[in-house]
Amino acid sequence: MPSLDYPPPLQRLIAQIRTLPGLGPRSAERLVLWLMQDGGRIEPLVDCLQDVGQRVEACEQCGFFIERDEACVLCHSPKRNPRLICVVEQAVDVLRLERSGAFMGHYHVLGGKLSPLDNVTPDDLRIEPLIHRVKTHPVEEVILAVGSDVEGEATASYLSDLLRMEGLTVSRLAQGMPAGGGLDHVDELTLYQALQGRRQI
Amino acid sequence: MPSLDYPPPLQRLIAQIRTLPGLGPRSAERLVLWLMQDGGRIEPLVDCLQDVGQRVEACEQCGFFIERDEACVLCHSPKRNPRLICVVEQAVDVLRLERSGAFMGHYHVLGGKLSPLDNVTPDDLRIEPLIHRVKTHPVEEVILAVGSDVEGEATASYLSDLLRMEGLTVSRLAQGMPAGGGLDHVDELTLYQALQGRRQI
Repeated sequence: MPSLDYPPPLQRLIAQIRTLPGLGPRSAERLVLWLMQDGGRIEPLVDCLQDVGQRVEACEQCGFFIERDEACVLCHSPKRNPRLICVVEQAVDVLRLERSGAFMGHYHVLGGKLSPLDNVTPDDLRIEPLIHRVKTHPVEEVILAVGSDVEGEATASYLSDLLRMEGLTVSRLAQGMPAGGGLDHVDELTLYQALQGRRQI
Repeated sequence: MPSLDYPPPLQRLIAQIRTLPGLGPRSAERLVLWLMQDGGRIEPLVDCLQDVGQRVEACEQCGFFIERDEACVLCHSPKRNPRLICVVEQAVDVLRLERSGAFMGHYHVLGGKLSPLDNVTPDDLRIEPLIHRVKTHPVEEVILAVGSDVEGEATASYLSDLLRMEGLTVSRLAQGMPAGGGLDHVDELTLYQALQGRRQI
């Protein structure tokens, strides 16, 4: 006789939750059993997930999240300096820089960093749109706000070669950032200092 | 000017994820941004959640999870002893006892334990169905496999009074369980010993 287990849909949900970052088998099971209590806990979660899936997308220009059919507040703000573009790895990095209050230009989300070991090549990142953007807009300086780990440095080096060929000033966040870490380990003050002390490369 | 934040649907999803057990604000944000990558990560999760919401329910008799319109394997197994009912707090406790291999009777999931501080009264638990069940079925003994914390002891005491009035033998898991803890902190061997050494009350 096979030993008792949860019904297959419940097992599949636990397996699915386990794939999420930061959740192991035990916490996934606890989370799913919590959702099963009182009956009404699955529906609001599904509603929120579907809402995001249907209504949130990336801005075609900068790559930050926008609501579908709404203008990007970053790309269309008259208060922001269009001659300055800050290149970041992920959309969440935009929020981190905004919270530091040190930057009032435009952004460009790459969607990752170059990493041959993980099969991330220039074609997988939003590099082509960045080059097109600096060619068709009055951009003067590009700040490469990518992490200072190996992949970040490689990405910055690759991009700076391309961008300097377009006659642009290219700069990098100052080494106020901890060595070997990405933007997610930096507090806002450090980030502020790193932005102020950026060095031309 | 208000500081930049995620679009409202994304903010609502992060807030919803934060209500799940074991997830703080930072891990909720990380989880949601992970879901937003590559586009295709929300849909399988929604599918699994909806599948569970639509197809998994509690068995009317024992309270363990079953697939809708399917017979409960626990209540309908001819190999199980219907004269013995094991009362547990949560459906997950059924799995824990099954894995210990020490019990071959029927189960009854209460759905919690008495806790006046949290407004959990006898009406909130499946106590009425339990009394009805022992009156209409040939039950001889009820094992109260609830935790040995204050609420668990109160629940056991309340139930044993009711069940002894029905002329039943009522027993409790042996004190092999760690004092002050619920079933979720017990390893399978301890649980086995606790079942074998149950004492009549």
